[in-house]
Amino acid sequence: MSDFKYKLIIVVRSDLEMSKGKTATQAGHAAVSAAEEARKHHSKWWAAWLNEGQCKIVVKVSSEKELLRLEDEAIEAGLPYALIEDRGLTEIPPGTVTCLGIGPAPADKVDRITGKLSLL
Amino acid sequence: MSDFKYKLIIVVRSDLEMSKGKTATQAGHAAVSAAEEARKHHSKWWAAWLNEGQCKIVVKVSSEKELLRLEDEAIEAGLPYALIEDRGLTEIPPGTVTCLGIGPAPADKVDRITGKLSLL
Repeated sequence: MSDFKYKLIIVVRSDLEMSKGKTATQAGHAAVSAAEEARKHHSKWWAAWLNEGQCKIVVKVSSEKELLRLEDEAIEAGLPYALIEDRGLTEIPPGTVTCLGIGPAPADKVDRITGKLSLL
Repeated sequence: MSDFKYKLIIVVRSDLEMSKGKTATQAGHAAVSAAEEARKHHSKWWAAWLNEGQCKIVVKVSSEKELLRLEDEAIEAGLPYALIEDRGLTEIPPGTVTCLGIGPAPADKVDRITGKLSLL
């Protein structure tokens, strides 16, 4: 998919049918929060990812169940991650889980979890 | 618009007609890069914004010219910002300026620049 050695994957729930603006906001939350996790706990991955141009790829799943399964896999693999719950100010009910950031981390470690998912 | 005291505004060019996934990726770049600028140069704003729940709002302009004018205003106001140029791997030509993050910064300072823009 790319030559980047480090990547951050943002997995978005397509079943919520969020607008472009809402999706962008949620993806922004996932990107900042997952990057913060990496900065705190995997600072070498974080720095390498930033230096390389902070590769981000946005993919989709079609249910909360799938998203939570991916979160479990990220935890099990010891990768930085951030699950985003919406405040529900617009479009969807408060507390809805909208997306998940996995990484920034070495591409091969992330690909093992998200490699088969389709682009949003 | 909200009760947050700190916010990050992400301004997206609607004239590029980017897909939902592409828009989310570019917004993610803007969010991470602008947050990094704040962390380095306005660490109190950055910490307050994160603690408050990292308010992000995605708005739009319809041209590169408008986006660059907003960048000038952010610079003049001394706010953290990040102008995002796409690598052009998909959808649009390399080097295209896609979006601009302004903040995280006190809401009133950001609103003076972006307060009249419409949501994406």
